[in-house]
Amino acid sequence: MPGDTRRLGEFELIAELFAPLAAPGGFGLTDDAAIITPPVGSDVVMTKDMMVSGVHFLPDDPPDLVARKLLRVNLSDLAAMGAAPHGYALGLSLPPEVGDDWLRAFAAGLAADQREFGIALLGGDTTSTPGPLTLSLTAFGFARQGRLLRRSGAHPGDAVFVTGTIGDAALGLMALRGALADPDGFLAGRYRLPRPRLAAGAALAGIASAGLDISDGLVADLGHLCSASRVGAVIEAALVPLSSQARRSIGHRPALIGAVLAGGDDYELVFSVPPDAAGALERGILGAGVAATRVGRIVAGEGVRVLDATGVDITPENPGFRHR
Amino acid sequence: MPGDTRRLGEFELIAELFAPLAAPGGFGLTDDAAIITPPVGSDVVMTKDMMVSGVHFLPDDPPDLVARKLLRVNLSDLAAMGAAPHGYALGLSLPPEVGDDWLRAFAAGLAADQREFGIALLGGDTTSTPGPLTLSLTAFGFARQGRLLRRSGAHPGDAVFVTGTIGDAALGLMALRGALADPDGFLAGRYRLPRPRLAAGAALAGIASAGLDISDGLVADLGHLCSASRVGAVIEAALVPLSSQARRSIGHRPALIGAVLAGGDDYELVFSVPPDAAGALERGILGAGVAATRVGRIVAGEGVRVLDATGVDITPENPGFRHR
Repeated sequence: MPGDTRRLGEFELIAELFAPLAAPGGFGLTDDAAIITPPVGSDVVMTKDMMVSGVHFLPDDPPDLVARKLLRVNLSDLAAMGAAPHGYALGLSLPPEVGDDWLRAFAAGLAADQREFGIALLGGDTTSTPGPLTLSLTAFGFARQGRLLRRSGAHPGDAVFVTGTIGDAALGLMALRGALADPDGFLAGRYRLPRPRLAAGAALAGIASAGLDISDGLVADLGHLCSASRVGAVIEAALVPLSSQARRSIGHRPALIGAVLAGGDDYELVFSVPPDAAGALERGILGAGVAATRVGRIVAGEGVRVLDATGVDITPENPGFRHR
Repeated sequence: MPGDTRRLGEFELIAELFAPLAAPGGFGLTDDAAIITPPVGSDVVMTKDMMVSGVHFLPDDPPDLVARKLLRVNLSDLAAMGAAPHGYALGLSLPPEVGDDWLRAFAAGLAADQREFGIALLGGDTTSTPGPLTLSLTAFGFARQGRLLRRSGAHPGDAVFVTGTIGDAALGLMALRGALADPDGFLAGRYRLPRPRLAAGAALAGIASAGLDISDGLVADLGHLCSASRVGAVIEAALVPLSSQARRSIGHRPALIGAVLAGGDDYELVFSVPPDAAGALERGILGAGVAATRVGRIVAGEGVRVLDATGVDITPENPGFRHR
């Protein structure tokens, strides 16, 4: 990893780079713990994701983008529950080759996203490791009691919607590996810097019957919703919303539709809505600055099937990335 | 690390080993996030610690003890703030050589301590890693608003107390390395399985002016209290409470007093109390099943000095372990 050899000790590192990011409840990161005070009538919503160098990002990825992706995949989990973000705790296991320059750029990425999402650092831990750089982030949000968006709750007859466009991140990863043209860098950008759908998630918490974010792939994540709800689902491939860049790629190589349906890392939301709410959503009532598109329906049974425009089953055989 | 090669995938691992540990707010670990609802008038207290194989524990340490130490060092941070434990989130970065047997024993250790401390699992993440096994734990507790025990708040004239006995863990680590006799295994046990002083921390939240837990060593951690409170402190070495096992070791090798004063991992509490409360504490008013012993006093200025029984300054030159 580029950057100076580390010179700062743990305490200097915290004081110089991370204390300026601290929330009031983080006590300037000088205490053993932090406090979180939800508004009256709200619960604390908590989620945790880890990222390992060489597994979830590349050692030469820009450190500020690594920081922002780490934050955003966690914020996406809060969005999936309909929670408003509040703050986060950060764990860093640092190998010797990660220098102060890398850490400064990483902290600058956190600072940029703290401003964008109105959150701050509450605490954490730094340790040394002989192995790869390992990042752990626990994010906290607030949700009104009884208004949580869950994976369970979908019923046969509900419509299935997604936010935004699907498949850009999977195509972007192919582009970053040189396997696809990406002239304006849009697809790679969608892979590198997810946009957590916080406003949409909050708006859906009172409307959707079930929902989650798309990290493993549309088919796999809708499958998780179906398992938790004990239902099945049918996706009409022709309805899946594509960016113009993704549409151009698939125009050249139609087999890429498999990557769109099974590829992960979009961090859009997939959710089910009762039939009487579906019409309002299709007329744009969500109004959270992001399109919601109907892509299919919940059915009795189990599993997710994908049909093409002629009704032929084109369900991918390997429906989504299984993280380990 | 001993154990079968892993056969369980991420989802099976969660379903078989970790879902049985889940708290109600963890939704059986099937959702994207968990909820935490503090009692009315209480805040959520949050702390996070990581442990890396080969840095914080040894690859052949018993997995159940690794799990319990990971939990307990975090519970000790909650104790240091005077918070009552509620639950935790767990992050695991698993290298290929960590097998299902290791993970089953690890989960059994978590289950044992969940029963002992009345806590449960709220969520987490598992990832693969090519590097060492890396564990990340975020613990949550509740504290009555305005009753938090902080590092700042000590004043000149306050008495300095510790709970329990000091130095056992540092001597225990020496014993585990074969550098010290430990006939009954007491010292090694104190290193391997800390006892978070939760009842004492809760009782002190209304009495102590400042406090924290001893993870880096008595002198170093009292130094943290002094920095946060902008005061100094004097410790009288002859007052530092020792177990009979530690006293026997030091009787043979008086130089070990340095390891007692500067060694980490005791997870006792060090705290300051105003003069009018010190007498009551010395008469055993803390009453939380653990002794509190006066070891010195807060003074104006900065830094921690240690004096022997004749008043000679014997402050260790390297006051405490600096984690990286």
